[in-house]
Amino acid sequence: MPEVPRMDWPARWVREQLGYELRDQALFSAALTHRSAARSHNERLEFLGDAVLNLSIAEHLYRANPQATEGDLSRLRAWLVSSQPLAETAAQIGLGEVLRLGSGELKTGGFRRESILADALEALLGAVYLDGGLAEAQRVIRALFAERLANMPETDDLKDSKTRLQEHLQSRGLPLPAYEVVRTEGEIHAQTFWVRCEVSTLGLAATGQGLSRRRAEQEAAAVVLREILETVAGAKPATRRHHE
Amino acid sequence: MPEVPRMDWPARWVREQLGYELRDQALFSAALTHRSAARSHNERLEFLGDAVLNLSIAEHLYRANPQATEGDLSRLRAWLVSSQPLAETAAQIGLGEVLRLGSGELKTGGFRRESILADALEALLGAVYLDGGLAEAQRVIRALFAERLANMPETDDLKDSKTRLQEHLQSRGLPLPAYEVVRTEGEIHAQTFWVRCEVSTLGLAATGQGLSRRRAEQEAAAVVLREILETVAGAKPATRRHHE
Repeated sequence: MPEVPRMDWPARWVREQLGYELRDQALFSAALTHRSAARSHNERLEFLGDAVLNLSIAEHLYRANPQATEGDLSRLRAWLVSSQPLAETAAQIGLGEVLRLGSGELKTGGFRRESILADALEALLGAVYLDGGLAEAQRVIRALFAERLANMPETDDLKDSKTRLQEHLQSRGLPLPAYEVVRTEGEIHAQTFWVRCEVSTLGLAATGQGLSRRRAEQEAAAVVLREILETVAGAKPATRRHHE
Repeated sequence: MPEVPRMDWPARWVREQLGYELRDQALFSAALTHRSAARSHNERLEFLGDAVLNLSIAEHLYRANPQATEGDLSRLRAWLVSSQPLAETAAQIGLGEVLRLGSGELKTGGFRRESILADALEALLGAVYLDGGLAEAQRVIRALFAERLANMPETDDLKDSKTRLQEHLQSRGLPLPAYEVVRTEGEIHAQTFWVRCEVSTLGLAATGQGLSRRRAEQEAAAVVLREILETVAGAKPATRRHHE
């Protein structure tokens, strides 16, 4: 079997992996070229493709979840298209093998690096948009993310601990928790924080630790929330027994 | 002259201010309703419209600035459609007067608040997109932002001081500046930072102050950069005399 002629690149790969018949070959060559490899690289297309992906996912989520709040939609979008899921999707279609990288990046394994893969996938979507329009880009995106779109988590599970604790207390008509930095340690550039979270009406408090105040607050909130939910579960033996 | 019948709202206002002939009246009613006023409000449409605006501006900038880097494009977009310019544009079309707000927001002047106006403008663009498609939304956006699009700043002027100082030094083949926190003051929640920026090869240093380390670094970099540029200008009297 003869080798695939170079001039068919990247049309054949794009056809096979994205199901898209490209028109402008140069556009897709640029999309598959990291800035370390050539002057005509994918950074500008990534800027555009990021916006294409954001709108496509926003519209899909808006239509598919008529009851979801703006906060729910934002959290679902982050779950779908933050850097990690993008890089995973890029790896699934073998983008790392066709991406052109400079010799330095090749040596250090840049084709496996999350940000490089995620950026290249966005650039590809920018190329599809310019080449074929929004509807084509949306079709490609729905196919690429089909599995994630079909298995989205409950929006409550995507909320951070502070938000979940706050919403739980509000639903019970209780006052909000109080957060207080109780200790810091280390140099100004690398401080560790200890934050205490107290829900005085329930007589509960816990201290969390983290490399930022925000992180420490989340840790403390998570502990308090767990205690509350365990207490609530323990206080309802009748309900639990039904399932035993 | 008879009063405008209520059922023409918001079709007439949308026609006059956005130059768009709406089909789905309920969609635009929701876009013009703050969450404080009714259950059917504009937060979900704002989520969608933000993405519509981002893509429209990204595509415009991509096509209009073939030489601009991804960083340049990002800075131009931020200049065009961050909260402040959005709120200004919203005020220009009188959005504050047609926006429906709850009584609490009305009393506290919510119709003038930047974030409420910016969000409502995004929601309107989301409604145009759903009602008429991307091309119509882009037409409305180009008209709304025509003046800003025609008067964009030089991308260099949008760079922050640290970036400009770094690029200036790199262009002269000089080493990067060193930043050091030399003092902090105040409680952990409201600290003031003093940062020293030193370019030892030029024998220059300055200290900046700010409510975050980042802010203090920028202040320090700005002073050093100003000193460098004044020195450079002063060292070229021949060039300057040409213009005198």
